Amino acid sequence: MPDNVVTGLSRRSVLTAGAVSLSVPAVAAGVALAGQPADAAAGVTRQITVYAEALPGGLYGYGLAPGQATIPGPVLEMWEGDTLEVTLVNRTDKRLSIHPHGVDYSTDSDGSPLNASFNAPGETRTYVWRSREMTAAEGRRFLPGSAGYWHYHDHAMGTDHGTGGLAKGLYGALIVRRRGDLLPEKQFTVVFNDMMINNRTAPATPMFEANLGQRVEWIAIGHGGTFHTFHLHAHRWADNRTGLLEGPADPSAVIDTKDLNPGGSFGFQVVAGLGVGPGVWMYHCHVQFHSDGGMAGLFLVREADGSMPPGAQDAIHRFHGHAHRTHH
Amino acid sequence: MPDNVVTGLSRRSVLTAGAVSLSVPAVAAGVALAGQPADAAAGVTRQITVYAEALPGGLYGYGLAPGQATIPGPVLEMWEGDTLEVTLVNRTDKRLSIHPHGVDYSTDSDGSPLNASFNAPGETRTYVWRSREMTAAEGRRFLPGSAGYWHYHDHAMGTDHGTGGLAKGLYGALIVRRRGDLLPEKQFTVVFNDMMINNRTAPATPMFEANLGQRVEWIAIGHGGTFHTFHLHAHRWADNRTGLLEGPADPSAVIDTKDLNPGGSFGFQVVAGLGVGPGVWMYHCHVQFHSDGGMAGLFLVREADGSMPPGAQDAIHRFHGHAHRTHH
Amino acid sequence: MPDNVVTGLSRRSVLTAGAVSLSVPAVAAGVALAGQPADAAAGVTRQITVYAEALPGGLYGYGLAPGQATIPGPVLEMWEGDTLEVTLVNRTDKRLSIHPHGVDYSTDSDGSPLNASFNAPGETRTYVWRSREMTAAEGRRFLPGSAGYWHYHDHAMGTDHGTGGLAKGLYGALIVRRRGDLLPEKQFTVVFNDMMINNRTAPATPMFEANLGQRVEWIAIGHGGTFHTFHLHAHRWADNRTGLLEGPADPSAVIDTKDLNPGGSFGFQVVAGLGVGPGVWMYHCHVQFHSDGGMAGLFLVREADGSMPPGAQDAIHRFHGHAHRTHH
Repeated sequence: MPDNVVTGLSRRSVLTAGAVSLSVPAVAAGVALAGQPADAAAGVTRQITVYAEALPGGLYGYGLAPGQATIPGPVLEMWEGDTLEVTLVNRTDKRLSIHPHGVDYSTDSDGSPLNASFNAPGETRTYVWRSREMTAAEGRRFLPGSAGYWHYHDHAMGTDHGTGGLAKGLYGALIVRRRGDLLPEKQFTVVFNDMMINNRTAPATPMFEANLGQRVEWIAIGHGGTFHTFHLHAHRWADNRTGLLEGPADPSAVIDTKDLNPGGSFGFQVVAGLGVGPGVWMYHCHVQFHSDGGMAGLFLVREADGSMPPGAQDAIHRFHGHAHRTHH
Repeated sequence: MPDNVVTGLSRRSVLTAGAVSLSVPAVAAGVALAGQPADAAAGVTRQITVYAEALPGGLYGYGLAPGQATIPGPVLEMWEGDTLEVTLVNRTDKRLSIHPHGVDYSTDSDGSPLNASFNAPGETRTYVWRSREMTAAEGRRFLPGSAGYWHYHDHAMGTDHGTGGLAKGLYGALIVRRRGDLLPEKQFTVVFNDMMINNRTAPATPMFEANLGQRVEWIAIGHGGTFHTFHLHAHRWADNRTGLLEGPADPSAVIDTKDLNPGGSFGFQVVAGLGVGPGVWMYHCHVQFHSDGGMAGLFLVREADGSMPPGAQDAIHRFHGHAHRTHH
Repeated sequence: MPDNVVTGLSRRSVLTAGAVSLSVPAVAAGVALAGQPADAAAGVTRQITVYAEALPGGLYGYGLAPGQATIPGPVLEMWEGDTLEVTLVNRTDKRLSIHPHGVDYSTDSDGSPLNASFNAPGETRTYVWRSREMTAAEGRRFLPGSAGYWHYHDHAMGTDHGTGGLAKGLYGALIVRRRGDLLPEKQFTVVFNDMMINNRTAPATPMFEANLGQRVEWIAIGHGGTFHTFHLHAHRWADNRTGLLEGPADPSAVIDTKDLNPGGSFGFQVVAGLGVGPGVWMYHCHVQFHSDGGMAGLFLVREADGSMPPGAQDAIHRFHGHAHRTHH
């Protein structure tokens, strides 16, 4: 595999790989994703420490241990009802913060300069994110719970909206799961940030890998100032909360392309190679000059035993040598 | 409160405040929103008069009485099955019209120059908007009814598509409710129109206010020539017709950010401060240079008794003095 | 009718008009759309030949017989479970391919240079598209089937993403239907491709025609590098898989405007003129400078007997003579 291929594995999930982070109570975290919550009624409170750090090339990232910041940051997960206390250590010389989508927080955890909720350079500050299940409302309606494919990001570097921090990599995925949700075997985070994917352009964009038949979860996030459409070859999903049909009467459209614009996010699970077989499949922005300009990456579906399928290495070679040039 | 704060209250709903408009049959209008329609089968026909007027700064607005035009115009509401006869008085020296989304109208009520359906300068013309409930179709499907968070706008000023009228403020919200829908306690209309919100930029954008626990309805409308993503801090909604889950099996995604592009609209109800408490929360376009450029406003959630929560006045002060400048 | 009016009838569906194509087994194709599949369990395999050809003005198109290429190409349809073997004859001197959305294909039918899946100039190559019904998954969820309003397009001309082929007209609609889906009486394909509709601008855009009460199907597809919002006057649809409500509890929003961006597609059926009567209705991009610039067309709803409704000819005349100029 070429040196500059970035695998999805570098982005660690707090819950799937809780033991990696010294600050995560390892047992509680591991249990959460090993299966459904033991107690369906009570939420769990977990503490994690996130480190915001400078990275080479003028970039910044979040990580779960000092010196381990990545772009995007780690996948953070909760079950509906859980609380996550995020202690953010600002190891940079810039003002920055962490602002979540989808969860409940008081104004002092807003992560915005508007509410004086940020870390000064070198400062450590704790943000509390709560979540909840749906609750019955009048008229047989339900107030939505917190479950969703969300994200977190800086809201204070550069401008009061975090424009500088976002441009430089301070973002990551946040998933809140409803009890009963299926857990994936692998997770990929794809952030369309201006004209880049995870602050890279092809062929240096991530190559995500799975074995044929694995259930993989894609979390797609938009940031920056430009508009995009995320497309995945040879796989599709329902345009609803989970990407799976919730039953035979679920009216949701099934799609393989979805708008992915600043501040938005969605996620879905697919079975790698189902109905199409192993191989190298593209994911890319479907705006033509964006994909031509490098907003494309690879999804390598290996054989079920993990071996390379016929032709895959050739396709990877083409992607690295020939792709994204005009054909005459 | 600073002088240039614009509250949501200036936009009157035809149904909530029908008595304000001389032309609305007051009792029928008031009854409609005081509860569900008395007769589930029969629709009501109401007449209103809308005045299109010039406003300071080269702007234009719609209003329910002479001299009372606002940007956006008044919220117009119907129950599915109702008819609204809109007599538009053109008090300007420009060609203009009123074109609705979501309802039924004959070509002569299209509001378009294509169908010779507009008001010449100084002209008065009546447009008829009808609505209907869903109806059974073949294959156990149903033809959609009219219920939705719609909008109305000029379709004749400046160009045959009303580009001039839209740029200058001739737009407003139109809501068609299905029997059984929950009625809100407050309503806010947010129009992302090119790089402005309700033709204003921060800090002159509307500050919407509610007390902790009130059910407030947001109607979001897009206009102009640029693309946006609407984000509300600390609140979220279901991405379906009402914003509330229609039952525990409703598969809709729950979101706090949604694309809001020219001609589109959506609405939702949230309980102010639910799970997060009172305070000053931002709503803004999540396109970074749009929010930095002034596409942001405030949602002030007061204490349940209407008093100001701790820190709220400071946040408002920051918004007016410090927001939307680059941080060094 | 003016000479430059393009009717929807020029785009032939493989299934509705299978007999037009010599390469389609005529009986099987005709049966498929005459009613539901005879055998609900087994899928059918059909072979078609598609010809990619140069058209006047530097354009290119797909067609079902030599010399019959159109922009957009023919509507291709399948029932879930069917397989379509598409033999693409490249009658041009350019590299090109056919890449489908929504269906299953192996890497050698990907239609991408990445997978060495394209037609060299003059080359004939067969692409195999399979489809499947939803299947039960864990947790009472269902893996989505293939049913949807999809599309196909070149992925090899000009760049590795087919940017040149798309700009010049190599695209069309692909519909996969679920058993039980309603079949339309007429079909219209609308492709927003950069600043054009079906590579035309007003008044040369298609005028689609139906008689009052006919159930017509719109397939809307986005391509190119710009973002759009599709709006249809006086008709609306549910924002779900079919555009019809799947039952009285379907929570989908009902809309008349939807984002239509590169690589995306959606479809819906409406009853022509239902509740509004016959007449000339506009469909257009609701981005103001796009509609002003020519992204608008006409939907002519004739009387039930096919005759012209009052005022319709005048409106068509206005569209051709006066539309899309600034009004002073």
